[in-house]
Amino acid sequence: MNYDASDIIIFGGAGDLALRKLLPALYRIYSEDSFSADHSSVILTCRSDEEADGLKDEIKKNLKLNLASGEFSDTAWESFASNVHSVVLNIAEHDEQWSSLAGYLDEHPDRVRVFYLAIPPAIYGACCENLSKQNLITENTRLVVEKPIGYDSESAVSINNKMAEYFREDQLYRIDHYLGKETVQNLLALRFNNLLFEQLWDAKSIDHVQISISETVGLEKRASFYDGAGAMRDMVQNHLLQLLCLIAMEPPHKLNASSIRQEKLKVLQSLRPLVDEEVSSNTVRGQYVAGEVGGELKSGYLEELGKPSSTTETFVAIRAQIDNWRWSKVPFYLRTGKRMNERSAEIVVQFKDVSHRLYPSDAGALQANKLVIRLQPDESMQLVLMSKNLQKLETELQPVTLNLNFADASKEFRSDAYKRLLLDVVAGNPSLFIHRDEVEEAWNWCDPIIAAWKTSNRQPHLYRSGSWGPDGSDELLAERGHQWFNLAEIDKAIS
Amino acid sequence: MNYDASDIIIFGGAGDLALRKLLPALYRIYSEDSFSADHSSVILTCRSDEEADGLKDEIKKNLKLNLASGEFSDTAWESFASNVHSVVLNIAEHDEQWSSLAGYLDEHPDRVRVFYLAIPPAIYGACCENLSKQNLITENTRLVVEKPIGYDSESAVSINNKMAEYFREDQLYRIDHYLGKETVQNLLALRFNNLLFEQLWDAKSIDHVQISISETVGLEKRASFYDGAGAMRDMVQNHLLQLLCLIAMEPPHKLNASSIRQEKLKVLQSLRPLVDEEVSSNTVRGQYVAGEVGGELKSGYLEELGKPSSTTETFVAIRAQIDNWRWSKVPFYLRTGKRMNERSAEIVVQFKDVSHRLYPSDAGALQANKLVIRLQPDESMQLVLMSKNLQKLETELQPVTLNLNFADASKEFRSDAYKRLLLDVVAGNPSLFIHRDEVEEAWNWCDPIIAAWKTSNRQPHLYRSGSWGPDGSDELLAERGHQWFNLAEIDKAIS
Repeated sequence: MNYDASDIIIFGGAGDLALRKLLPALYRIYSEDSFSADHSSVILTCRSDEEADGLKDEIKKNLKLNLASGEFSDTAWESFASNVHSVVLNIAEHDEQWSSLAGYLDEHPDRVRVFYLAIPPAIYGACCENLSKQNLITENTRLVVEKPIGYDSESAVSINNKMAEYFREDQLYRIDHYLGKETVQNLLALRFNNLLFEQLWDAKSIDHVQISISETVGLEKRASFYDGAGAMRDMVQNHLLQLLCLIAMEPPHKLNASSIRQEKLKVLQSLRPLVDEEVSSNTVRGQYVAGEVGGELKSGYLEELGKPSSTTETFVAIRAQIDNWRWSKVPFYLRTGKRMNERSAEIVVQFKDVSHRLYPSDAGALQANKLVIRLQPDESMQLVLMSKNLQKLETELQPVTLNLNFADASKEFRSDAYKRLLLDVVAGNPSLFIHRDEVEEAWNWCDPIIAAWKTSNRQPHLYRSGSWGPDGSDELLAERGHQWFNLAEIDKAIS
Repeated sequence: MNYDASDIIIFGGAGDLALRKLLPALYRIYSEDSFSADHSSVILTCRSDEEADGLKDEIKKNLKLNLASGEFSDTAWESFASNVHSVVLNIAEHDEQWSSLAGYLDEHPDRVRVFYLAIPPAIYGACCENLSKQNLITENTRLVVEKPIGYDSESAVSINNKMAEYFREDQLYRIDHYLGKETVQNLLALRFNNLLFEQLWDAKSIDHVQISISETVGLEKRASFYDGAGAMRDMVQNHLLQLLCLIAMEPPHKLNASSIRQEKLKVLQSLRPLVDEEVSSNTVRGQYVAGEVGGELKSGYLEELGKPSSTTETFVAIRAQIDNWRWSKVPFYLRTGKRMNERSAEIVVQFKDVSHRLYPSDAGALQANKLVIRLQPDESMQLVLMSKNLQKLETELQPVTLNLNFADASKEFRSDAYKRLLLDVVAGNPSLFIHRDEVEEAWNWCDPIIAAWKTSNRQPHLYRSGSWGPDGSDELLAERGHQWFNLAEIDKAIS
C-alpha cells in the first residue's frame, strides 16, 4: 500500500521513545517503500544544537540495537537518513526557532502533517498553542499523543479540553501501542468471524477472563514520574482497560472507528464502580523489595527511588465486574506489576467446565477450554482443548494446545505496533486510537479506587522482585476458585 | 497394562485378514508385553497341511510387509512365533480334526478364549455349532465376527439368531475396525470434554456433516462377493453408519458399552427412512469405468469383473436426515467409492456461518468453522478458523488450520485399530463393538434404498477411475449450497 505524502514531526525527537520505537518503525516504513522517499519527511525536534548534531549517529546506533538481525542495511539507512531532519526548538516557548520548523513544513502545505508529542503531558498544551500560533495546523494535520492523558479524571478533561481548542477530536490520535499489536487485531478478527467464539462469548460459556501485563524492569529512568503515578495510572487506566474493552465489547454494528469506540465506551461505562470497602476486597496493591530477577539480584523499589518511604504501588491486581447482560457474574481479573518473574502480557479467556463429567475420574483431571492470547514477549494464540492421550490404550484425557504462532504462520511477520499505528495515523484511520470519552471514563473508574487506597492509609503489600506479586494476588483469585495462568511458568514446567 | 491369560483362535488363520491385520496386531501386543508369552497363545486354523507347513514363513513375510519400518526384529519374532500354533481344520465339518484344537485349548480351561471368525459369514453358523459340539465355549469365551453381518435385515437376523444359540449377546464382538481408530476414540473425548464442542454440537450451530471413505483400489480379490453386495452393503451399512452414530448420538449417561450402544441405536432409529422417489432424490449411485489412478491406467469395473454387465454400485452418496431435536434439518452426507482420486477417510463437521458479517467484503471471503477428523491415510484432526492475514496491515481475513496431528503430538503413536480392538476383546470391553440391534436397525434403513434402486431398473452413473465419483454426487450437495470437502485436493492446491 502506498500512503499519501506526509511530514511526520516528532516533538521529543531525541528522546527514548523516538529512538527506541518511533524511528525503527519509520525506518521499516521507508525500507518497505510504504512512504515515498520523495514525498515524505521525518522532522525531529531537539532541545539544543549539541543534541541535533549527534542525532543521526544516535539514531543509527539505536536502529542497530532495536531492529531485528539483518534488518539494518547501510543502503536503506542512507536513504532513510536523507529524509530525516532535525530542528532545535524550545517546545514551551514560541520564539523564532519555530519559524525554522515552519520553514520545512510550509514547503509542502498539502502533505499530511503528523505531530507526534513524545514529550511530557505537562507541555502538551503549550505545544498545541505554539503550533497554532505558527499556523502549522492544516486541515490534514493530525496530533498523536501518548498515555497517560492526565493524572485523574479532572486533569484528563483539562488536557483534552486544551487540545480541543486547537484540534478537532477526529484529528486527535491518542495512542496505546498495545492496540497496535497484531494479536490484538486478530482478537477481533477471531471474535467476529468464527462461530466457535461468537456463540460462546458470554457469561453462559465463559467462566472468567484474565488480563495480565508483567514487566521484569524496575523504575528505569522514570523514577520521579512513576512514584507520582503508580501502576494503576501507568498501566491499568490505559493498557489493561483498553484490552478489557476489546474482549468485552458488544459487536460493533460497523467496523469503523466510531462504532468500535462507542462499544468500548459502553464497556467502561458498565464497569461496576469500586468504592470504599469494595476496593479493599477487590484489589491488591504491591510494592517490590529486593530479589532475584533472571538470575540477578535487583534492588527494591525504595532503594531504586532513593527515598525512605513511598506508598506507590508497583503492582496491582483487580477483580472487575462488568454489569451488563453479556458478562453477568463473570470476573475480569486485571494484573500488572514491575520486577515480576517474567516479562509477559497475556489475555486468558477461560471457558466454563463442560456441563457434565462423563469420563471416569481415573481418566484424569479435566481442564476447561482456554483461549490464550499472548502479546509479549512473542505474539501468539493458543487454544487449549482436552484430548485423549494417544500413548495409552486406556482412556486417559490430557490437555492439548492448538497453536497459532504468528511467527510460524507467516515468515514475513514482524510485529511492530508503532509502525502499524503510525501508518494508521497517516491514512487517517483512528479505529485503534482512543477517544477522549474513553480516557475520561477510564479515569472515572480508576479515581475512586486510587482515592480509597489513599484514604485507607495502608501500605502496599511487599513482594519480592522476581516473584509473581504479593500473596494477596493469588488469594484474590482463589476466593472464587480461580488461579493466575502464568504461561511462562507452565512452559517451563513442560520443557 | 497386563491382560488376563488368553488363547486367541483365528478361524481363517492363513487368510488375508489374519496375515495383513490380525497377526501384525498380535505381534505388536506381544512385543509390548501386553500379553504374557507364558500365558497366551495364538492358534491359527488352516485348511490343509500344506497351508499349515508354510504358515510361519508366510506370517514372517507379511509382518515385514505390514509393520512399520524398524518394528520387526528377529528376537521379537522368535518369541512371538513360539506362541503361534496352527491346526488343520475343516470349519464346516465336525470331525476328529476338531479334537486337536480342543487339545490345545483344554490345557488351559480358565484362560480367556477368543474365537475370531476371519471366514465367510456363510459358515459362521457351522463354526459356532461345532465349537459348541466340541464343548469349547466356556464362560470366558468371546466370539469376534467381521462385517458384513448378513446381506439384508432378514439374513442379519438369521445370523444373529444362529450365534445367539451358542453365545450370549455379551460374548459377541461384532468388529468394525474404523471404531478402533484412535481418532474415532478422540472424537468422543473431544465432544464430551470440551465446552467449545459440547455447546455447539447441534442444529443451531452445525450446518451439515460429511462422512466420506474413498478407496483407490478396485475389486482386488473380492470380485464375486463384491458384485453381489455393492458399496451400500460393503461400506455404508456398517462403517459409514457407525461413524454417523458417533457424531450424532446424544451424550450417553455413562461411558459404558450399554449406554453408548443405546445412544447409537437411537440415532439409527431416528434416521429418516428413504423410500420410493425419495431414494432417487437423496442418493447417487456410481460405477467406475477405466481411468487413471495415481498415474496408472486402471480398468473399469466390468473388465475387472469379467462380465458383460452389472448394476452393482461401486460408489454411493447419500443425503441422510436424522429426525430428532438435535439434528433437525442438518444434512448428513455419506459418500464412499472405489477407484477414487485418493485413499482417504474423513469426517467434516461444518459449522454455520457467523450470525452477521461485520468485516467488509474486501477483507476476503469468510469460511465457516470446520472440524475435520481424518481417519485415513493418516489420523489427524484439524480445526479451521478465520484469522487475520498477518502479512497485511490492511484487514484481510484468511482461514488458518489448527492441527492436532497425532503422529506429531505423540512420537510413540502408531495407530493400530485391530490391536486396540483385540485388546478390548480380551479385556471384555464391548464399547467399540456393535450390538445386534444396531446391525439390524442399520439394515432396516439400507434395505428400502437398495430395493428402490432395484425397482427403478436404472443403471448406476458411470464415473472415471481416479475421479471423485459421478457428477450427481456434487450436485446432491450443490442443491443445498454445499460441496464435498476433499482434503487431499485442498492440500495439493496449497502446496
